[in-house]
Amino acid sequence: MSYTYEYPRAALTVDCVVFGLDEEDLKVMLIQRDLPPFEGRWALPGGFVHLDETLDDAAMRELREETGLEKVYLEQLYTIGTIDRDPRERVVTVAYYALVRLSDHRVQAATDAREAAWFAIDDLPNLAFDHDKILAMAHERLSGKVRYQPIGFELLPNKFALRQLQHLYEVILDRPLDKRNFRKKILAMDILVDLDEVETDVAHRAARLYRFDKKKYARLTKQGFNFEI
Amino acid sequence: MSYTYEYPRAALTVDCVVFGLDEEDLKVMLIQRDLPPFEGRWALPGGFVHLDETLDDAAMRELREETGLEKVYLEQLYTIGTIDRDPRERVVTVAYYALVRLSDHRVQAATDAREAAWFAIDDLPNLAFDHDKILAMAHERLSGKVRYQPIGFELLPNKFALRQLQHLYEVILDRPLDKRNFRKKILAMDILVDLDEVETDVAHRAARLYRFDKKKYARLTKQGFNFEI
Repeated sequence: MSYTYEYPRAALTVDCVVFGLDEEDLKVMLIQRDLPPFEGRWALPGGFVHLDETLDDAAMRELREETGLEKVYLEQLYTIGTIDRDPRERVVTVAYYALVRLSDHRVQAATDAREAAWFAIDDLPNLAFDHDKILAMAHERLSGKVRYQPIGFELLPNKFALRQLQHLYEVILDRPLDKRNFRKKILAMDILVDLDEVETDVAHRAARLYRFDKKKYARLTKQGFNFEI
Repeated sequence: MSYTYEYPRAALTVDCVVFGLDEEDLKVMLIQRDLPPFEGRWALPGGFVHLDETLDDAAMRELREETGLEKVYLEQLYTIGTIDRDPRERVVTVAYYALVRLSDHRVQAATDAREAAWFAIDDLPNLAFDHDKILAMAHERLSGKVRYQPIGFELLPNKFALRQLQHLYEVILDRPLDKRNFRKKILAMDILVDLDEVETDVAHRAARLYRFDKKKYARLTKQGFNFEI
């Protein structure tokens, strides 16, 4: 089959910056390319948009196919149309970023990726295409947005200790936060539910567990409440 | 000439939501379509992306061709890939928004637009395609961003009275602001230059004129300053 048009057309792709958080670092998921160009190089998961799927659907499909990830928080980041960003031809890419609960998801390589793996954001390999720029853009968006929208909870287990929440902000904002102020601020917003449970199987003193109250947050937001850390 | 590909490709367009502000309203610039589909209907200025231009360049070119506008503040908004948004075929559009000093710019229709005109944002005609949705998205982005980034100044003359600045925020945020608090807040940020001039040719008492100090703002931002109205 072939398809003919009166004017030349750019190819359209999606690329996904997938963030995860563990006890130490902010991590990004990369796949190792199994095909040229940049064969063997690490890259963001992504690929060509099909004509019968939306951009969001294309991003989710590529994530599933290349990494096994499903049902993750996904948001469009930016569309990049630099002329020579792909050595083959003009390729315009719609970049997305995804937030993943590391505890919930195992990653598996599939289709045209040799391997999929998590990398610490400050210890990345050389990336294919302009994926370093896309990744930097996503990191900046995450750092900017996490203070004003409760998207950070997407990176935590459903039940978490305040210590874990503080760690999340410290890692993403890249600065230490005062424990007392942080707890006061987050509890004052009244968007966490105290689960009346404590951590189990931990070496340190077991901390109380909380969950984020999405419905309450939505209700408060309608009343003019602004989330801010 | 014709161009043949192994897989079908979506057409790629740009569409621009152009905001301007006058003494009364927030305005949007629309063009009247001279060609099908939606011939005669009002629409956002925009058109097909050429293979040898970036997305930003395409947006600027379309603005210039369809409205005569040049050198305006332009920012990418969102890319929309809904399957059936164009009756002809699959068209993915990269939406932009632009901020224009109404005093500096005259608008003229050109090429495939019959007419270009400003419309008050709360008195819009029926729009072609999904342009009402794109416009609503741009309006939301503007209202959200104007509080945290000094982009509002792009809508004002270079020299402005504090009354005009307050009017801008009242119109965009759609609520009245306390005059005294507003002045205190904006002057405390120390990003305006008092020009030691007053308005001329005004019916009311001539007010002092200010300009936004872009360089100082950049310097303060590096030191951790956050703009906020």
